Amino acid sequence: MNGNAVRVALLGCGTVGGEIVRLLREQAGELAARAGAPVELVGVAVRRPHKHPELGDLLTTDATALATREDVDVVVEVIGGIEPARTLLLEALKAGKSVVTANKALLAEEGAALAEAADASGVDLFYEASVAGAIPLLRPLRESLAGDRITRVAGIVNGTTNFILSAMTESGAGYADALEEATRLGYAEADPSADVDGYDAASKAAILATLAFHTRVTAADVHCEGIRHVTASDIAAARGIGCVIKLLAICERTPATPDTPESVSARVYPAMIPATHPLAAVDGAFNAVFVEAEAAGQLMFYGQGAGGAPTASAVLGDLVAVARNRVHGGRGARESAYARLPVLPIGAVATRYHVSLEVADRAGVLAAIAGEFSAQGVSIAAVRQTGGVADSAGADTVSAARLVVVTHAAPEAALAATVRVLAGLDAVHAVDSVLRVEDLGRKGVAP
Amino acid sequence: MNGNAVRVALLGCGTVGGEIVRLLREQAGELAARAGAPVELVGVAVRRPHKHPELGDLLTTDATALATREDVDVVVEVIGGIEPARTLLLEALKAGKSVVTANKALLAEEGAALAEAADASGVDLFYEASVAGAIPLLRPLRESLAGDRITRVAGIVNGTTNFILSAMTESGAGYADALEEATRLGYAEADPSADVDGYDAASKAAILATLAFHTRVTAADVHCEGIRHVTASDIAAARGIGCVIKLLAICERTPATPDTPESVSARVYPAMIPATHPLAAVDGAFNAVFVEAEAAGQLMFYGQGAGGAPTASAVLGDLVAVARNRVHGGRGARESAYARLPVLPIGAVATRYHVSLEVADRAGVLAAIAGEFSAQGVSIAAVRQTGGVADSAGADTVSAARLVVVTHAAPEAALAATVRVLAGLDAVHAVDSVLRVEDLGRKGVAP
Repeated sequence: MNGNAVRVALLGCGTVGGEIVRLLREQAGELAARAGAPVELVGVAVRRPHKHPELGDLLTTDATALATREDVDVVVEVIGGIEPARTLLLEALKAGKSVVTANKALLAEEGAALAEAADASGVDLFYEASVAGAIPLLRPLRESLAGDRITRVAGIVNGTTNFILSAMTESGAGYADALEEATRLGYAEADPSADVDGYDAASKAAILATLAFHTRVTAADVHCEGIRHVTASDIAAARGIGCVIKLLAICERTPATPDTPESVSARVYPAMIPATHPLAAVDGAFNAVFVEAEAAGQLMFYGQGAGGAPTASAVLGDLVAVARNRVHGGRGARESAYARLPVLPIGAVATRYHVSLEVADRAGVLAAIAGEFSAQGVSIAAVRQTGGVADSAGADTVSAARLVVVTHAAPEAALAATVRVLAGLDAVHAVDSVLRVEDLGRKGVAP
Repeated sequence: MNGNAVRVALLGCGTVGGEIVRLLREQAGELAARAGAPVELVGVAVRRPHKHPELGDLLTTDATALATREDVDVVVEVIGGIEPARTLLLEALKAGKSVVTANKALLAEEGAALAEAADASGVDLFYEASVAGAIPLLRPLRESLAGDRITRVAGIVNGTTNFILSAMTESGAGYADALEEATRLGYAEADPSADVDGYDAASKAAILATLAFHTRVTAADVHCEGIRHVTASDIAAARGIGCVIKLLAICERTPATPDTPESVSARVYPAMIPATHPLAAVDGAFNAVFVEAEAAGQLMFYGQGAGGAPTASAVLGDLVAVARNRVHGGRGARESAYARLPVLPIGAVATRYHVSLEVADRAGVLAAIAGEFSAQGVSIAAVRQTGGVADSAGADTVSAARLVVVTHAAPEAALAATVRVLAGLDAVHAVDSVLRVEDLGRKGVAP
């Protein structure tokens, strides 16, 4: 044991953990020079030690003992999930260990408890790897923009869904085929739910909103819709109005009005964005996050959002920072939640919408439908009607038309009420799709 | 005076300084919450106080006295240039003040002296605003990627030249017309030399290389070529091989070979890059920097590289970090130069080249020219000859052809020697242009 070394315990040794071990060994000299002392791996907790023969004496199955072991300075957690990670990290923090974790689900649910435990012990809690892999994003939000007012964070933070949507856009494939390809190529897991249903992105949105707005936002505060229902027709419809569909995590600050206080929202859903927006060009498994701040203006961060080596890079960046603080004293910047802004329910969040309807092709239908939008206070930006589509009922004596309505920004509740009413109209054969349109600061998206 | 406030002295109050004053006032509550104590402006040093009546008693013309005043904790410098900024900041650091500066020229020349002075006093020296304005870039390089090996930093770090080159690309305009438009719109200064001759970008390259490679690189180490000689023909020629021309700052790590040690290079020049590269889409006055690291892979940072508010945002981010350290103890991460890698002279830096020649249109010329490339060890990737161009000598009895040669990567010295020999050949009427081609990790650029 090196007397002045910073001693690291690693909890979990899967893809990311294996890369961490490799980098700690290969870059030992460089890490020591940057941290001010050797960074020494003193233990690795795994469930199946026989799978890691190269780690020899470092291995243990007793994660609790390792996380609180007296000679350990820093605990790095790459197990994932809520338990046992939560209990292990709370105990480590309580025992005075600094913590570096890549665990987005845990941060999004128990971030407050972890931050309090870190504060109580006066130690560091860093988690750059939890959002957007190797892309430096949390540190810029927490530190670089600490003198600014962030108004929006919007990004592509899940590589699996971006791969699927990119494939659908490029090839015209349907969702099922694109998912199958993603699975075959290793971009989607056997059970893809956490990705395709948006939960992974929602955890990240909670972490981003908390940092951006100095307000505690948990995964439960994030409205979440996945991409299972996005069709090839939706992709084509987006192209028709100069857009592409991306699964977005959006964290937004809504200014105060005479009637409502300043508030924030955090939501995840597939949305049409202008094809000219920088986020539209982010293809495949890459991630990118767009940040808008009052003084800084628009910023974008782009890179690999997942994978063993990129995630390990982010973990090691945090580890060097923690080690440097252990050597030189001081603590890194921590999140703050002083602003305590209310989180808007999704019904109050206003966005634009693209609504595709199959309607009866006869006089008065457009007026009736426009009237229902108007009755709910939803303003129509543009309408396009194309006749002669086959009626969904298959009765070839009935003439049907496709009607696409793009609205101005309207609260989700008003749009949902409109769609409910439309679905009940005789003249409306089917509401084929309802998708949000996010201009993200670019104007002029219209059919 | 607030007893526990962090007291700030501002040196200089031009566009950026004015924005800093505004933000310090408008966001006082938020900054205090984030820093842990009020951040109080206690003095502003300017040369012409009558131009700043709104600052009243805060004003002084004695910058030295303000920078070392006993009640000042942090000195923010936005004067620019080497002197008096250098002397002021060295005295401030010596007096135990932390320093935040946006002064790229000073950092690129005197970074070592400033860092040593900060270390000697145990205070912070931050300068995020010195490169790429509001884009969080230095903190990610210094901290987020501290656990990784950065192999390349390549970017567009000067908005003026990017505006000019974008205008030339979009409209086909020549350099002089595009510069005139940039000046008219306020993107270029009356004396544009610092921008168009590449000195501004070279300072930034020195700062980036120092942080990326943990090796002291000064402005004098950076090979620097500007954009004055880029013509509309060059832009068209770039388009012909699927490229656009950008003024790049490139910092690169060159691996060791059996004969040479690991080394780094830093250079600024206009270069053809693939139109499909993310940097190619960065238009107008925006900045973007591409970073490659062994574990993290490719990252890109994009945003506004200049302007009062964006630059002030970066200064305030640093100011909050410094203030937090004053309140809670500790120091931020500082640059390290432990690696001390040799800096390659430009002659040894290998890139690809696009060489455009006007040659005699007769048998044997291509063979002779190809032979000269070969004699210098420069391998040709592709050649395109187009006949029938007017001869530059104006003698219409002489038949001339245009010959474009794109090389594989070759050392600058070998290419320069080749061009010298070619220029002396009878068959070569003129060497019209020599431009570098930077693939930046993308393969397959060829005529």
